[in-house]
Amino acid sequence: MLKAGIIGSTGYAGAELARLLYQHPEAEVIWCGSRSYVGERYSSIYQNMNQMVDMECEDDNMAELAEKADVIFTATPQGLCASLINEDILSKTKIIDLSADFRLKDVSVYEKWYKLEHKSPQFLPEAVYGLCEINREDIRNTRLLANPGCYTTCSILTLYPLVKEGIIDPGSIIIDAKSGTSGAGRGAKVANLFCEVNESMKAYGVATHRHTPEIEEQLSYACGKEVLLNFTPHLVPMNRGILVTAYGNMTGDYTWEEVHQVYEKYYGKEFFIRLLRQGICAETRWVEGSNFVDIGFTIDPRTKRIIAMGAIDNLIKGAAGQAVQNMNLMFGLPENMGLEQIPMFP
Amino acid sequence: MLKAGIIGSTGYAGAELARLLYQHPEAEVIWCGSRSYVGERYSSIYQNMNQMVDMECEDDNMAELAEKADVIFTATPQGLCASLINEDILSKTKIIDLSADFRLKDVSVYEKWYKLEHKSPQFLPEAVYGLCEINREDIRNTRLLANPGCYTTCSILTLYPLVKEGIIDPGSIIIDAKSGTSGAGRGAKVANLFCEVNESMKAYGVATHRHTPEIEEQLSYACGKEVLLNFTPHLVPMNRGILVTAYGNMTGDYTWEEVHQVYEKYYGKEFFIRLLRQGICAETRWVEGSNFVDIGFTIDPRTKRIIAMGAIDNLIKGAAGQAVQNMNLMFGLPENMGLEQIPMFP
Amino acid sequence: MLKAGIIGSTGYAGAELARLLYQHPEAEVIWCGSRSYVGERYSSIYQNMNQMVDMECEDDNMAELAEKADVIFTATPQGLCASLINEDILSKTKIIDLSADFRLKDVSVYEKWYKLEHKSPQFLPEAVYGLCEINREDIRNTRLLANPGCYTTCSILTLYPLVKEGIIDPGSIIIDAKSGTSGAGRGAKVANLFCEVNESMKAYGVATHRHTPEIEEQLSYACGKEVLLNFTPHLVPMNRGILVTAYGNMTGDYTWEEVHQVYEKYYGKEFFIRLLRQGICAETRWVEGSNFVDIGFTIDPRTKRIIAMGAIDNLIKGAAGQAVQNMNLMFGLPENMGLEQIPMFP
Amino acid sequence: MLKAGIIGSTGYAGAELARLLYQHPEAEVIWCGSRSYVGERYSSIYQNMNQMVDMECEDDNMAELAEKADVIFTATPQGLCASLINEDILSKTKIIDLSADFRLKDVSVYEKWYKLEHKSPQFLPEAVYGLCEINREDIRNTRLLANPGCYTTCSILTLYPLVKEGIIDPGSIIIDAKSGTSGAGRGAKVANLFCEVNESMKAYGVATHRHTPEIEEQLSYACGKEVLLNFTPHLVPMNRGILVTAYGNMTGDYTWEEVHQVYEKYYGKEFFIRLLRQGICAETRWVEGSNFVDIGFTIDPRTKRIIAMGAIDNLIKGAAGQAVQNMNLMFGLPENMGLEQIPMFP
Repeated sequence: MLKAGIIGSTGYAGAELARLLYQHPEAEVIWCGSRSYVGERYSSIYQNMNQMVDMECEDDNMAELAEKADVIFTATPQGLCASLINEDILSKTKIIDLSADFRLKDVSVYEKWYKLEHKSPQFLPEAVYGLCEINREDIRNTRLLANPGCYTTCSILTLYPLVKEGIIDPGSIIIDAKSGTSGAGRGAKVANLFCEVNESMKAYGVATHRHTPEIEEQLSYACGKEVLLNFTPHLVPMNRGILVTAYGNMTGDYTWEEVHQVYEKYYGKEFFIRLLRQGICAETRWVEGSNFVDIGFTIDPRTKRIIAMGAIDNLIKGAAGQAVQNMNLMFGLPENMGLEQIPMFP
Repeated sequence: MLKAGIIGSTGYAGAELARLLYQHPEAEVIWCGSRSYVGERYSSIYQNMNQMVDMECEDDNMAELAEKADVIFTATPQGLCASLINEDILSKTKIIDLSADFRLKDVSVYEKWYKLEHKSPQFLPEAVYGLCEINREDIRNTRLLANPGCYTTCSILTLYPLVKEGIIDPGSIIIDAKSGTSGAGRGAKVANLFCEVNESMKAYGVATHRHTPEIEEQLSYACGKEVLLNFTPHLVPMNRGILVTAYGNMTGDYTWEEVHQVYEKYYGKEFFIRLLRQGICAETRWVEGSNFVDIGFTIDPRTKRIIAMGAIDNLIKGAAGQAVQNMNLMFGLPENMGLEQIPMFP
Repeated sequence: MLKAGIIGSTGYAGAELARLLYQHPEAEVIWCGSRSYVGERYSSIYQNMNQMVDMECEDDNMAELAEKADVIFTATPQGLCASLINEDILSKTKIIDLSADFRLKDVSVYEKWYKLEHKSPQFLPEAVYGLCEINREDIRNTRLLANPGCYTTCSILTLYPLVKEGIIDPGSIIIDAKSGTSGAGRGAKVANLFCEVNESMKAYGVATHRHTPEIEEQLSYACGKEVLLNFTPHLVPMNRGILVTAYGNMTGDYTWEEVHQVYEKYYGKEFFIRLLRQGICAETRWVEGSNFVDIGFTIDPRTKRIIAMGAIDNLIKGAAGQAVQNMNLMFGLPENMGLEQIPMFP
Repeated sequence: MLKAGIIGSTGYAGAELARLLYQHPEAEVIWCGSRSYVGERYSSIYQNMNQMVDMECEDDNMAELAEKADVIFTATPQGLCASLINEDILSKTKIIDLSADFRLKDVSVYEKWYKLEHKSPQFLPEAVYGLCEINREDIRNTRLLANPGCYTTCSILTLYPLVKEGIIDPGSIIIDAKSGTSGAGRGAKVANLFCEVNESMKAYGVATHRHTPEIEEQLSYACGKEVLLNFTPHLVPMNRGILVTAYGNMTGDYTWEEVHQVYEKYYGKEFFIRLLRQGICAETRWVEGSNFVDIGFTIDPRTKRIIAMGAIDNLIKGAAGQAVQNMNLMFGLPENMGLEQIPMFP
């Protein structure tokens, strides 16, 4: 049994991680860290865990935790993981960081978009970007894993084969994304109150959202040149789910079948990616509660654009599920262990 | 592996049953019956099952199915199961009926409340009412199981110890229940459209809802005399969940601890019943996606009434989960096999 | 034009008051008080008012405001109005208090349920309880109006004729109420975040909610003896609306027509009360955005109980609309002036 | 008083029209047509109108209605209005058609996108496209008004000044739109049931939605050349509201202030268009229940694109409200008469 610790276990992503790990056949949670709730019963904060989880919240003493844990998940605000880790900790345990601290290779890009000083840039070179379907081999061998952002996961997986194979012009990419409200976290803010979110839609972080450089960096690797794109997130009155609608100008007159073959080439054998048949659009309800990514696309022959659409559960494939998938890879377990839940509908 | 067939597999309860059975380690679905979708791929109707379930919908030929299946679930409209079964079928397979056909022992009560002629009253005496926490031993030995209604499950479990032990006057019981909209089924009706249900609350079936006699019959067994009560269901703008708020006049000056002891006596060892600590009210979000029942209560010393509150997921403990729990009992499997999911929040 | 000031204008009730008063043909808002937002443009907080309202938030200097305003509305936390008013203020202006400070005649009951010291009990005798349909004449002549609570308004109006005419036993009353989330206010609390409220139902304040003594006091006046009852509020995942389901034991064998006549006697000529036809249950969607109260009832001949159901928009008839209705009465304007909006659906 | 008739009064747009007209100081509804509900009380179908509207549903005898009505609104399925009108009717009354029958000037475009034969193409030349802020003068003088589509209204108004003034390249336009579910109508379809829509997001009609040519035609007039663009509608789990997020490549290095000036030039004096300050994104909640259009935009200096965002209430500015605005213009009434409601929040 893997001994796992969670720093930041009382946010929505941390709690989802706890839920998945408690149901994982080869993992055991030994530490639920939470600065805000030290000493409180975990199941009194997340009463869904009542009678399943019997544990009190601990602080975020990562040095102590590193002595005990095979793997530490950090589901913490930006900057915290980078400020806590050091060589000693990394020599004793593996880190899966759900924050953005180790996702961007260029520290200046991080500091510009996050407006934070990076406290341990020395580990950036070895950190591996944990998008399993793309970086699988590197993930197996790392001790420091940067778990991708929720929007990023959905955006990159939706576009990757098109960019990699040159089907669309990378300079033309526009990503219009929509997220359920759990993505906004569990902080007590007026903007996230029920009556403020319910019965409304809005864009936010337009042209400035921090997931933008992360998407651009990974797609740049795919096509071998710098990518600049537009990414516009929207807040939707639902709990879970991200839908990405991505637009790109085609570089030739491709047919649906040809483009579908490109997707098949990259994802045909992936357990967690489900390619949709022609005419079917991705819907978040069909992936809710699972680690699946549903991807489909339409070609508009009038404008010669592809409209590609992807859907994930932001708390699972977009956070906790992908972290567990990475853990499985890093410890040589079957990649889908503990992650085979069929999506729950309705 | 148990071979299971589902008649009525494309309603919400049938689909939840399919989802749970596909994830059950000792069961295999061999038949997805659906009159409306014969010949269509099941996963094109419920796309959450895409790449997990590869099967086409079949008709409701129960005689043929009885040859192949160890157990048949009927998640069908009232009257259908009673019209399809016969001694030959029951001699070959076990039936778990999610409709109301075999829940009420008195055929005249059934015919009065359901306004239907009962087509096989001869099987009523042997049918077992499948409320596992109360009828466990009888369930183990039956071949015809009447799976309880969703409101009924939550109402009876919430009140049973109080009625059984005479803590409240059975003549004073008022049950005010609230249900998510999946309880209304997947039929295309204007009243269940998104815009009709969203942002509204209403009672329905006031003083006439068909789950009333079912609750009354079971509570009558508990206290040994006829029970008449008020049961008022309400429709709530959410997908899943039933909340029961039940009121009863206390027969004495009981303390919270004394009443809690009564609940402990009946439910203390039940895996699926979670008794809440003093001051905690049941909330549907903490049981969503699970087979759990959360039960708590408050004593009002001013009016000498108990207000008992219970919460379930109507599609799981209120339908498909309980059916699987019954299957486990009927086939000697561990009662919670395939049903240990931690509730999903948010 | 009446000059109106609002203390506490940036809560949901205060904002609804501003919205209604800006559309009122005979009123003018001259002061939007808000401790939290002093100096900020009102329409930057409530952007629905953009280009309609051009005003900055002020503090809560009631003495200054009393010099300028014909009427002051206080939509403030419990205790504030009582601590701010004095004889000098009341001699210059009229007060309509949306808090509970002047609703209960017995100061000890107030202090027990609200756990606050009452700062101006000397005004309690003259304060008038502003349930227009019941206290119309007294309202016309007061300078200190206690605007009723949202749950209270719906509960009392639903039950009043039955209690007044002795149709039900006042000792048997159980009120099970459900409210949209705007009733919980605009404070930044985790419990009211979108993901915490959405897709869930719960009771709260069971046997201890502060609207209980207010309902009891008013119904006691109606029947001439002390009333103790159960009142259980529930939180519903919707923005607006209160639904009350009230139960009482009938004192005789009344028919639906007889009971309907009793309702007609009291409400037949009321503009804002709509009595529903037999078989129709109140639904909150049909009153949303209006000052209407929809009331219906069912008789259960089996249990000899009446189940009476009422629906209001909690922010209008349950708060701001009723306050405007009271203002109209206090200043001799037509009672429904500025309040004739047809409910908005969907 | 204008005498108004509504054909198709029991859909959501028709009912909203009835609601607005009943509150309009200079209009009177004399006919509520509804094939499905002939002879039923209108207020039994839309109980929000209870005690406000006392009328039974009539059939769609437009010849008879033309004798009595000053104006007829048709809120009917595509093709019906074109099949019912004729010169005789148009000589007696004015028609405001909320369907698409007279929106597209080129009958072949209509027949291609709608897959219907147009039954009265002879009236296309005289029909006026009723986007008041753009075609105001023509609207005043027509007897046949084509009321724009909901998506179209929001899309065109958001982009018009940018296209008209050449700020963006018309060949680069991508419109990603999101709509509440009332836009899907009141038909009883499984896809629009509460549990199917709630907690999910999806695109639909990708590259094929019928509002596409309508947007293209109007923007072509604006820039004087043919426009082809991508328009992708999405279904959102809320009742009302359309949000448009539109992308275009800038034709130069414009500043926010310069672009804002362009918007001011066209909309600065429009009552119903509210231009948002820098950094504010449109949100549907701030326009709900009103005829307002909120428009804002962001410039992305990295990609040299403008992201323009507009929000409307789809049933008001996107349908019934705009129809009333057109009626006001056609009959010489103040343009905002009966339409000054402040948006309702929450």
